[in-house]
Amino acid sequence: MDAGGTKLLGGVVDADLVVHHRVHRRIHGLDQAELVEKIVDAVEEARSAAPDVAAVGFGIPALVRPETGSVMVSNHLPLDRVPFRALMSERLDMPVAVDNDTNVAMLAEHRAGAARGAEDALMLTLGTGIGGGLLFGGEVYRGSAGAGAELGHIVVDPNGPECPGDCPGRGCLEAFASGNAIGRAGEEAARRSPDSALGKALAQGREVSGALVTELAHDGDELAIEVLAEAGRWLGVGLVTLVNALNPELVVIGGGASAAGELMLAPAREVLSERGLPPNRELVKLVTAHFGGEAGMIGAALLALDLTAPRKVPE
Amino acid sequence: MDAGGTKLLGGVVDADLVVHHRVHRRIHGLDQAELVEKIVDAVEEARSAAPDVAAVGFGIPALVRPETGSVMVSNHLPLDRVPFRALMSERLDMPVAVDNDTNVAMLAEHRAGAARGAEDALMLTLGTGIGGGLLFGGEVYRGSAGAGAELGHIVVDPNGPECPGDCPGRGCLEAFASGNAIGRAGEEAARRSPDSALGKALAQGREVSGALVTELAHDGDELAIEVLAEAGRWLGVGLVTLVNALNPELVVIGGGASAAGELMLAPAREVLSERGLPPNRELVKLVTAHFGGEAGMIGAALLALDLTAPRKVPE
Repeated sequence: MDAGGTKLLGGVVDADLVVHHRVHRRIHGLDQAELVEKIVDAVEEARSAAPDVAAVGFGIPALVRPETGSVMVSNHLPLDRVPFRALMSERLDMPVAVDNDTNVAMLAEHRAGAARGAEDALMLTLGTGIGGGLLFGGEVYRGSAGAGAELGHIVVDPNGPECPGDCPGRGCLEAFASGNAIGRAGEEAARRSPDSALGKALAQGREVSGALVTELAHDGDELAIEVLAEAGRWLGVGLVTLVNALNPELVVIGGGASAAGELMLAPAREVLSERGLPPNRELVKLVTAHFGGEAGMIGAALLALDLTAPRKVPE
Repeated sequence: MDAGGTKLLGGVVDADLVVHHRVHRRIHGLDQAELVEKIVDAVEEARSAAPDVAAVGFGIPALVRPETGSVMVSNHLPLDRVPFRALMSERLDMPVAVDNDTNVAMLAEHRAGAARGAEDALMLTLGTGIGGGLLFGGEVYRGSAGAGAELGHIVVDPNGPECPGDCPGRGCLEAFASGNAIGRAGEEAARRSPDSALGKALAQGREVSGALVTELAHDGDELAIEVLAEAGRWLGVGLVTLVNALNPELVVIGGGASAAGELMLAPAREVLSERGLPPNRELVKLVTAHFGGEAGMIGAALLALDLTAPRKVPE
């Protein structure tokens, strides 16, 4: 189960990482009790489709204590200080594993995806917010208190807008290149240009989300393309910082907003190749997640598989 | 021997890390041949004071291949593609070790200084430029090609000035908080305020360097204090990025410009505590290098000691 700030995506995943059954829930704006019920309900739906499910893994957008599976803090879901693993084990009566959503996405890409074999890599998951994953020396790096890899909260413009959510920062990458940020920028652009496809969609009362901007950009709307390009250039500024500081072999871009693909990545690469330090900028590969928007779900399943069976794919 | 972009500081260091004899050379603006002669000369001076010297370690402001001790690229000295270790071994007829100056400073602080016992720590050396050191899981992290930890080249303002030297970036931390940047900002401030101590120093024909600004600030000149505070606030923006992304236990501030001490660190802390993500911002300690501006020299000596004797201080 991969819970983002907006949606829950779950699946029944076998030891070969084949997904047999998917479940979806919208979890935006729920209070804590509603959220817990919604998650339990999603797991039960998956179990009813595959009664031999042996364990559940969760990726959640939160700072999770690895030893206890308890949430320290979550910026996108009402889970602060919830003993998540204990609560879910009791409700589901099954072995439960939980980790930060981007850590599990990084794990999936490292064990079986785009970062397979890499020693030093970064992952950015562009979703409602932006999550980060770090791999150093072939191991997922969690920071001294498990609060590392908040790569959505590197500063790309100190005079930029206040970072949404509970982050007290200004001009964080998340404020410019997340799905939410793309939606906000898309809505502003739609108001300025009512004749664009984006403007017409707004006039028709559609919610201008990152997903809508991406859809219209893929359909060829110039305005939507420019909105994604601008987000991509900000992503590029963030990559200059990360690639200069950490010299990764590769940066994996995942999450729902990565559906924009080269519409964001090409402008990001351009900024990186112009402003990044040699040789770091030449050495790094910028790739999309092998598991796309499902990296978090697959990584959560890997946590669950680790609970039930010897590891199939060596780390 | 610790070579910065401006000065070489060397010393005869025993196995207890006591410094018995120091040598200084100014190495700014030399061509490659002059630089090599100056370095050899400094080593010979130290050796004549202590004929039992058994090996030489160098910290240099360059990207160094760990296996060969050859320089890939140096932004501050004319050493690009110089096989430094081989060249110095031949010239000095002694065992030679070499690494990036900030990596060796990090090593010194980790083995015997402010970061002793730390698992996850960062180091920023504020000198002519800004170097960086990273410690993850108790090991110095070098990046996938040894080019990591260029923490002076994280972007703090994408619309800021072009980064000096060979960096193609804009608004890097180094352009705001290095000794050179403080000198430039000090000179501008001195021109605006001829009645300040800084303005008078400029009128007397003194070069407005980071060291002069720091000296006058310690003497109480309000303008110099404000120049350091502004550099400190930019340092704080950089720390927000690094502390959010990497969740270190501590950040060690070293290098010559760290002589400004709390005049820079207090404003930096203020920005971090205002804009950094909890819990990262509360958990991190911001400390000055135990070895001050000599961390690089001590770390270089540790490299040399590792060549000659079993390790005295366990890593």
